[in-house]
Amino acid sequence: MKKVEHIGIAVKNFSEANSLYYKLLGVEPYKAEYVESEGVNTSFFRVGETKIELLEATNPDSAIAKFIEKRGEGIHHIAFEVEDIIAEMERLKQDGFILLNEQPKKGADNKLVCFVHPKSANGVLIELTQEMK
Amino acid sequence: MKKVEHIGIAVKNFSEANSLYYKLLGVEPYKAEYVESEGVNTSFFRVGETKIELLEATNPDSAIAKFIEKRGEGIHHIAFEVEDIIAEMERLKQDGFILLNEQPKKGADNKLVCFVHPKSANGVLIELTQEMK
Repeated sequence: MKKVEHIGIAVKNFSEANSLYYKLLGVEPYKAEYVESEGVNTSFFRVGETKIELLEATNPDSAIAKFIEKRGEGIHHIAFEVEDIIAEMERLKQDGFILLNEQPKKGADNKLVCFVHPKSANGVLIELTQEMK
Repeated sequence: MKKVEHIGIAVKNFSEANSLYYKLLGVEPYKAEYVESEGVNTSFFRVGETKIELLEATNPDSAIAKFIEKRGEGIHHIAFEVEDIIAEMERLKQDGFILLNEQPKKGADNKLVCFVHPKSANGVLIELTQEMK
């Protein structure tokens, strides 16, 4: 695990949350992106080497909509950058971690991603992320 | 906000969680510290410029015990490093954020800290942290 690549925060109202995190962090989001496969609007703020990602559901079946329904707004996941996602997935599986996807999938921000089940990590949804070449 | 200084994770069983995050992150905790004022055991893992902090309650009145009772284990807070905590607290107050302490207090890892109410930040408990001289 090279660094905390980003922290994902589930929000109800994208434009209000973007204004609020702009005030909080003192920087504007450098990018906004709609990820159709996940049913989310995303925006990214840089803080040091890490990004804060705001996530708003665009349909009621989105994982973000379900998360907010169950727990309210808040931190949804932590993403760690890895060099070789396939090797890391293999290593974690061998160590007993439960992966939520068998193959890396295409995430926001030009990344390959894989999620680790929160049951495996004290209630924390972990994302592995590797830059796509 | 200079960087994500650490991410705090509330856990039930400190030694099991330390073993698990050692396996997950591939590094050992570089420090463990009992913070009497907060009623917590803490341990710290380095990942890039950020630390992962595990938090276990040492008494039932601890904020961590109450968090776990209400929401289960999981991510408890994000801490941002600031240059001048007093100035940042003033700036955020002016911008309408609700601070949970009026004065900076002494936290783990030789820091001055202040918390921002999760109501102010889409359900996220934010910590400001400044290295003590």
